[in-house]
Amino acid sequence: MSEKKFNVAVVGATGAVGEAMLSILAERNFPVDNIVALASKRSEGTSVLFGNKTLKTKVLDDFDFSDTDIALFSAGGSVSEEHAPRAAAAGAVVVDNTSHFRNEPDIPLVVPEVNPHAIAAHNGIIANPNCSTIQMVVALKPLHDAATIERINVCTYQSVSGSGRKAVDELASQTASLMNGKDAEISVQPKRIAFNCIPHIDTFQDNGYTREEMKMVWETRKILEDDSIAVNPTCVRVPVFYAHSEAVHIETRDPLSADQARKLLRKAPGVTVMDKQEPGGYPTPGEEGTNRDDVFVGRIRDDISLDDGRGLNLWVVSDNLRKGAALNSVQIAETLIKEHLGTLGRAA
Amino acid sequence: MSEKKFNVAVVGATGAVGEAMLSILAERNFPVDNIVALASKRSEGTSVLFGNKTLKTKVLDDFDFSDTDIALFSAGGSVSEEHAPRAAAAGAVVVDNTSHFRNEPDIPLVVPEVNPHAIAAHNGIIANPNCSTIQMVVALKPLHDAATIERINVCTYQSVSGSGRKAVDELASQTASLMNGKDAEISVQPKRIAFNCIPHIDTFQDNGYTREEMKMVWETRKILEDDSIAVNPTCVRVPVFYAHSEAVHIETRDPLSADQARKLLRKAPGVTVMDKQEPGGYPTPGEEGTNRDDVFVGRIRDDISLDDGRGLNLWVVSDNLRKGAALNSVQIAETLIKEHLGTLGRAA
Repeated sequence: MSEKKFNVAVVGATGAVGEAMLSILAERNFPVDNIVALASKRSEGTSVLFGNKTLKTKVLDDFDFSDTDIALFSAGGSVSEEHAPRAAAAGAVVVDNTSHFRNEPDIPLVVPEVNPHAIAAHNGIIANPNCSTIQMVVALKPLHDAATIERINVCTYQSVSGSGRKAVDELASQTASLMNGKDAEISVQPKRIAFNCIPHIDTFQDNGYTREEMKMVWETRKILEDDSIAVNPTCVRVPVFYAHSEAVHIETRDPLSADQARKLLRKAPGVTVMDKQEPGGYPTPGEEGTNRDDVFVGRIRDDISLDDGRGLNLWVVSDNLRKGAALNSVQIAETLIKEHLGTLGRAA
Repeated sequence: MSEKKFNVAVVGATGAVGEAMLSILAERNFPVDNIVALASKRSEGTSVLFGNKTLKTKVLDDFDFSDTDIALFSAGGSVSEEHAPRAAAAGAVVVDNTSHFRNEPDIPLVVPEVNPHAIAAHNGIIANPNCSTIQMVVALKPLHDAATIERINVCTYQSVSGSGRKAVDELASQTASLMNGKDAEISVQPKRIAFNCIPHIDTFQDNGYTREEMKMVWETRKILEDDSIAVNPTCVRVPVFYAHSEAVHIETRDPLSADQARKLLRKAPGVTVMDKQEPGGYPTPGEEGTNRDDVFVGRIRDDISLDDGRGLNLWVVSDNLRKGAALNSVQIAETLIKEHLGTLGRAA
């Protein structure tokens, strides 16, 4: 890491992801010179934590980014649409955690373990992928390199924190209501989520898939730089607070055994293999998945529905607020500094 | 239905499924002459409900089945292993809800909407399939008839009641503990289930799949009477009390569109299609799935990862204690009476 330091802005600092960004910047000793927490006018002056320092949020609308080196955005697509180009024009490099710019051909979509080289092509904005996609491609990258993935059937088990802090509160309050014999009040999710599963995340598209499902199709291809990969997802919200889980069934061009996959994954950056075929010998979101940086992979096994050795199943668990959002954004910023901004920062 | 009446025994009457069997026999006006609730010596004399009648359980061990016409077993595989052949030898027809006899070639494995004709070949024992398989084959039967299913990728979201009443209590008590800032005590499931997902149901097999997963492979083939169907399941326990959900991705020999599938499913026995592409327009286990007889199907859509129209996705929800166990057993008994035992019962 360079000895230079950087002025950093976190946009959406009062949200679940913004809060995680500040905490991760501090815990990783990101080379911060000055840090600014930005939020809407409504949240002006709210206290947020950066390590053991307290920051008061400033208002995004009239913030001047000309002194900012790196701006981490996570305040919703419409906020990014309006303010990210403004920040980039003022000279900041934006790492945007919303879906707004992800599919634009000239904007890199980056998972540092998978396609760090894509950062080089940025024009001031780098997109952070969707949480469900990030953890899947981290696990699939070494397998794709070894055997070329042709098709993916994936079913997700996504935690409520993916819908933000209000959804975390909703699961807690609905659970408490039901445990006390009261009706559950529905506010964030489209149906009751306590003790339930909802096969619907983001909006429905004309083809019958949800936008969350289509993100896994579009983003997987862009990040793995292979438009021939076919992806068939079903995305489901489950009553878990933090960490997403995914049952990933892949089909490869070349044969790839579970043993080979396990070996490749044990060496893969950002991956922890947890795969004993015994009770507890696999990752779960509520235990291994929460508040951890790595993508956890278990239940690695040959697909018995294909008899040519070209199918493999995996169970992939990761913290959606960390690796699925805030951590990945910070890692993009770290890579950016290391590879591209090293000489541009401020003297330490 | 015949005017004759029958002597019925429910074995495992104090369990979650046994209790549901008694309740369903009463609510469907099953032609019962005399009914006996059987349980272990430990539960002798326990009161159980049959409609608004209270029954005291008798002890299975020394019960003489020679006066029993139909015995519904749901007290675990080892109990069925010991006592089902004894009941059958005494002249009763056993409908067994455990996995013990399911894979024996000369024992019919029956879902009445799918393969009622298989009952004819029974030799005193008819097996009731696994809950996850039942709801899937009810939804898939009309699609298999229309387009021949070749391969199934399925991921399950299974409720804790599939592990019995103690697992229902465990989810409630773990949830209460966590909501009150205490540690969750683990007793039934292999890991904490409250606010968590566990990719492990039943025991691990040598091929890396769990026995629950292999049941979906073996039983689907037997019930659909087609050993060429390839099935690739991942079975996961989720923090839901009642009803299992399944994301089912099928590949067919002949093209089958989502529109065609929707039409076929609307006419299919035991199926309710709930498939509007809008918030709430799909079934969920905690709402539509609980305490209902039908298998609910939604999220019907063409698989975009296959470009030849031979792939389809479905979301299938059903009450695992009712259609997945007790109701299916009672329906087998009803079919048995209607088709085979009509003249053998007792005068009404």
